[in-house]
Amino acid sequence: MLHPDKVGHEANCEFRPYSCPYPDKGCNWEGALDQVKLHLMQEHKPTPTIATSFYDCTFRFDDINQPRVLVGIKSYFGHHFLFWVEKRKEVDGLFCATVQLIGTEKQAERFVYKLELKGQGCRLTMEDKPRSIREGFSSALASCNCLTFTDSTAQLFTKDGKVEINFSIRAVN
Amino acid sequence: MLHPDKVGHEANCEFRPYSCPYPDKGCNWEGALDQVKLHLMQEHKPTPTIATSFYDCTFRFDDINQPRVLVGIKSYFGHHFLFWVEKRKEVDGLFCATVQLIGTEKQAERFVYKLELKGQGCRLTMEDKPRSIREGFSSALASCNCLTFTDSTAQLFTKDGKVEINFSIRAVN
Repeated sequence: MLHPDKVGHEANCEFRPYSCPYPDKGCNWEGALDQVKLHLMQEHKPTPTIATSFYDCTFRFDDINQPRVLVGIKSYFGHHFLFWVEKRKEVDGLFCATVQLIGTEKQAERFVYKLELKGQGCRLTMEDKPRSIREGFSSALASCNCLTFTDSTAQLFTKDGKVEINFSIRAVN
Repeated sequence: MLHPDKVGHEANCEFRPYSCPYPDKGCNWEGALDQVKLHLMQEHKPTPTIATSFYDCTFRFDDINQPRVLVGIKSYFGHHFLFWVEKRKEVDGLFCATVQLIGTEKQAERFVYKLELKGQGCRLTMEDKPRSIREGFSSALASCNCLTFTDSTAQLFTKDGKVEINFSIRAVN
């Protein structure tokens, strides 16, 4: 490789370090792909699951007042998926829930996530392709690859002040 | 019945006339339960279905600029259900889709509706109890018995400028 190509290469190289997917926490961590999950578990503790199986897990979403919450991490066939809930800044009382793969854009195309809120006689479900953490959170929001709901919708699914969200992953061909 | 009880009785009598569920169109129609569907079909033409079966039907939602659209009417075991999409006034670019039964509150409790938007590799679903047209549209909105989505989410499910929404009903015990 020629020296002038170095900067362009480093910005796009498949093996370039991954940034912490929590940049708004002021975290400047960078590291290898297989270290991202460990970093998140140690430094940005997600919510503990309340029920889990190989295929899906249920999280309790306790704090809807934070701007962004890493609700949970789910592992599926050796891949790790991050489940986020974010308060939309531009609209008061609007939430966005989405899923990112700790991996490349190409790997992300092989999966579909499902987020499901269950209430008394009602159910709200979103299935979509996850985004790679390479693309960043704002990319998922901009393209609306997320489940959007209002705080009053959240009330519909609230039991004892908490919202339970079921999160599952499946592979696609 | 004593004369002073007449007004109270008329406001709550099961057999009192039904108002047109389209009050914001300035329609003052009132009539019997079995005339409501006919009135809507004649005066407030819903979108024609593009595919239908006994269990579900698919509507094409063409005009997202109207404040409220009666997207379709579905009949199921002799009951008629109205499927509405409304632009929320208080939040720019936010839509609400909901279902009402042409019938009483008690009858509405026996059903669950499902609204489903399908896009390229993604799917957004809401299942909930329909509301009676007696209760009015604002009651469904206030209690969030509706599927809320933003206009950018609608884009995710748009094909050739149109959003297709599948609408089905089932009975519950």
